[in-house]
Amino acid sequence: MLDKARELDAADELAHFRDRFEIPEGVIYLDGNSLGALPKATPARLEQVMRGEWGKGLIRSWNDADWITLPQRVGGKIAPLIGAHPHEVIVADSVSVNLFKLISAALKMRPGRKVILSEPGNFPTDLYMIQGLESQGLATQRLAEREAIIDALDEDVALLLLTHVHYKSGAMFDMAALTEAAHDAGALVLWDLSHTGGALPVDLNGCGADFAVGCGYKYLNGGPGAPAYAFVAERHHEALEQPLSGWMGHAAPFAFTDDYSPAPGVDRLLCGTAPILSVSALEVGVDLIAEIGVDHLWAKSRALSEFLLECLAEAGVINTPSLLQGRGRSREAAEGVGDAQTETSARDAPAPEPPPLKERGSLALVSPIDPMQRGSQLSFRHQEAYALCQALIARGIIGDFRAPDILRLGFAPAYLRFKDMARTAEELADILAKGAWDTAEFKQRAAVT
Amino acid sequence: MLDKARELDAADELAHFRDRFEIPEGVIYLDGNSLGALPKATPARLEQVMRGEWGKGLIRSWNDADWITLPQRVGGKIAPLIGAHPHEVIVADSVSVNLFKLISAALKMRPGRKVILSEPGNFPTDLYMIQGLESQGLATQRLAEREAIIDALDEDVALLLLTHVHYKSGAMFDMAALTEAAHDAGALVLWDLSHTGGALPVDLNGCGADFAVGCGYKYLNGGPGAPAYAFVAERHHEALEQPLSGWMGHAAPFAFTDDYSPAPGVDRLLCGTAPILSVSALEVGVDLIAEIGVDHLWAKSRALSEFLLECLAEAGVINTPSLLQGRGRSREAAEGVGDAQTETSARDAPAPEPPPLKERGSLALVSPIDPMQRGSQLSFRHQEAYALCQALIARGIIGDFRAPDILRLGFAPAYLRFKDMARTAEELADILAKGAWDTAEFKQRAAVT
Repeated sequence: MLDKARELDAADELAHFRDRFEIPEGVIYLDGNSLGALPKATPARLEQVMRGEWGKGLIRSWNDADWITLPQRVGGKIAPLIGAHPHEVIVADSVSVNLFKLISAALKMRPGRKVILSEPGNFPTDLYMIQGLESQGLATQRLAEREAIIDALDEDVALLLLTHVHYKSGAMFDMAALTEAAHDAGALVLWDLSHTGGALPVDLNGCGADFAVGCGYKYLNGGPGAPAYAFVAERHHEALEQPLSGWMGHAAPFAFTDDYSPAPGVDRLLCGTAPILSVSALEVGVDLIAEIGVDHLWAKSRALSEFLLECLAEAGVINTPSLLQGRGRSREAAEGVGDAQTETSARDAPAPEPPPLKERGSLALVSPIDPMQRGSQLSFRHQEAYALCQALIARGIIGDFRAPDILRLGFAPAYLRFKDMARTAEELADILAKGAWDTAEFKQRAAVT
Repeated sequence: MLDKARELDAADELAHFRDRFEIPEGVIYLDGNSLGALPKATPARLEQVMRGEWGKGLIRSWNDADWITLPQRVGGKIAPLIGAHPHEVIVADSVSVNLFKLISAALKMRPGRKVILSEPGNFPTDLYMIQGLESQGLATQRLAEREAIIDALDEDVALLLLTHVHYKSGAMFDMAALTEAAHDAGALVLWDLSHTGGALPVDLNGCGADFAVGCGYKYLNGGPGAPAYAFVAERHHEALEQPLSGWMGHAAPFAFTDDYSPAPGVDRLLCGTAPILSVSALEVGVDLIAEIGVDHLWAKSRALSEFLLECLAEAGVINTPSLLQGRGRSREAAEGVGDAQTETSARDAPAPEPPPLKERGSLALVSPIDPMQRGSQLSFRHQEAYALCQALIARGIIGDFRAPDILRLGFAPAYLRFKDMARTAEELADILAKGAWDTAEFKQRAAVT
């Protein structure tokens, strides 16, 4: 497969963007969906912010370096990546805090309705923030498996809160269909785009979405713990009311009045003062992703993950024979972490007999087998997924583990090569064949993975 | 006064710490109470975090570089500066967001009580966060002038929320007395230490305080919008419940369970992922302040502000004759922005006749005249305070303006010299004498000041 990888790399029009990132020698980084790599331009930009804007400009830089409008400026740059208008997106706080603001806002807009509907196994913080409002007596959490969500929408539901691309399985919701169903039930919709923004195109306004939040430190390459972003459709700007009514969301913060009066539009989502160093780093990442283009990134992401699957199938370590039988017919391949959409993507091309599975171990694909139905990742179930992940890391291939048994490989295509896929498959097959993960060292779970 | 300034500078044991900060040539920076100056060590540290920890370490740095415990580590370093135990302080979010968490927690701990008591003219975000909870129907804001606060404490008050050093006047509350009064009424106390932490010593535990929040970007020199910190007295750790229950405050964030279960102690104040670049910059500032020592800083701050007052009185631009008549006897000098404590500090030394006030203008001191009763700043009232501030900035002296009519000069003593005070007084006197502030240019108010 290495020859084919070389051909694909040679034809890859995004290949040169790899040079815009710091990628350590010898590392294949398949965890850009957890923490994006460092853009080479970031340290120089931060140096300028520190020495120039902060060091020399001091307090004057709130005006002179436009720190005061940085959350709007970077939000405005994220907007076209997610199908929003610039004035509908702002950078602020964390995904969690923004969830709290927007769930609260939805409850205000749907008086008499208290239910926030989501799915079990959603990214934990999404559920925890519903539970936070529940602890205040203001919300009631309702969870429905993804195939039962539409049926769970009734006149008690104020808000449907879903993560567009599932963090664990990579399964993708049909944003337009779910949004429409929620609206039909009189509910609002809040999309968590943490595993979407910067990885694949999404059209919030085209789908009629009400609210969205997203993460800055994954596919946007904003750095560890980078601030998050939030979207509010223009039609809700005037009615938007949220309880984290800090001074930076005030119509006139520097009038220092005793009474809160919200700023126009999404500005009222601001609470405290934005962490300028971190937001500045995020801006560099966003600029770079915008330059490459999300459409291009997603196309390459699909090509990468499909090629990896091909290599894994060739090596006989995927227990999904149908992979080689027309790609996409099998439902069992996607049963993993609550995916209910694969049937819509069945294709019926004939295929050769798959090679027999290796004796010592194989992986179960839990991501949707149709690349149009999943985000920029592939997740595999293995009972020793943690040890397997550690064994890969020891060989320079960094993916991650998601409890209890998922090996997750993410594709941030701006800095990945097809030959990285071939080598990943080769190493994975070797580890599985030798049971090389089955050592005490790799089975000791770290506190954080 | 320049000769005296030189003597004082020569005797200043903290003088050498000025070299640890980037201070632009020709600038006298009297706004460290709004944005602390850049420590020289910060850019190198951030370079290491970016290129080493993020660039090379990638996702592994959550463990290998201890990013995951950074909020606790930096919080633990702030603790001794404010009279707390290391495990009682954590770095998280912004002051505003932390206020919301702790006001909410207090309401949970005092069921049946809904009133949050504060003072009018408190820093706006403190009041706005009460109003946020009011908009949720969970709290009732009650404001009482500072001399009436104790009388306003009754069985409806869940929490007394005060800013220890007033952002505008610099007036300081008696933390021990107010805390005791609140406790006597069955209420909890939350101190906003934004203008205290890193500037003057304070003893949260000695005073029996329940909660505190504080700012990272002022006297702690953490950089623009640096994350904030929060304190919870150990006795409240077990009962603490707050609605911003994000995944980083979970007992086991990486177990990815659907149900929130709070982490032990102050860790449950964490919500989303900490902005590591910004928290790392904050750590450098905190380390430097801890090395210098808050006691030393406060002693020098008082010496600086007293010397400035002496220079201003000598120049005849302070309309507080009593300044030269024993320093501290006058009540009118401190009537400005709600200070009711000056009478306790009267001193009765005899003094010479003051020189007559200059014809063209003078300043009214609104900070307490007793340096033990004020924070690390001096505030003056002048009807053209904004233009005056701009005229000073044009001469390289950066203070700030607080609406509607306050010129605020802050003393971050680690990088200020006595000769800076002499020059500030000289330029101020010159501007006032010439009416040099009275130009269209300086009277145009910027959007942000």
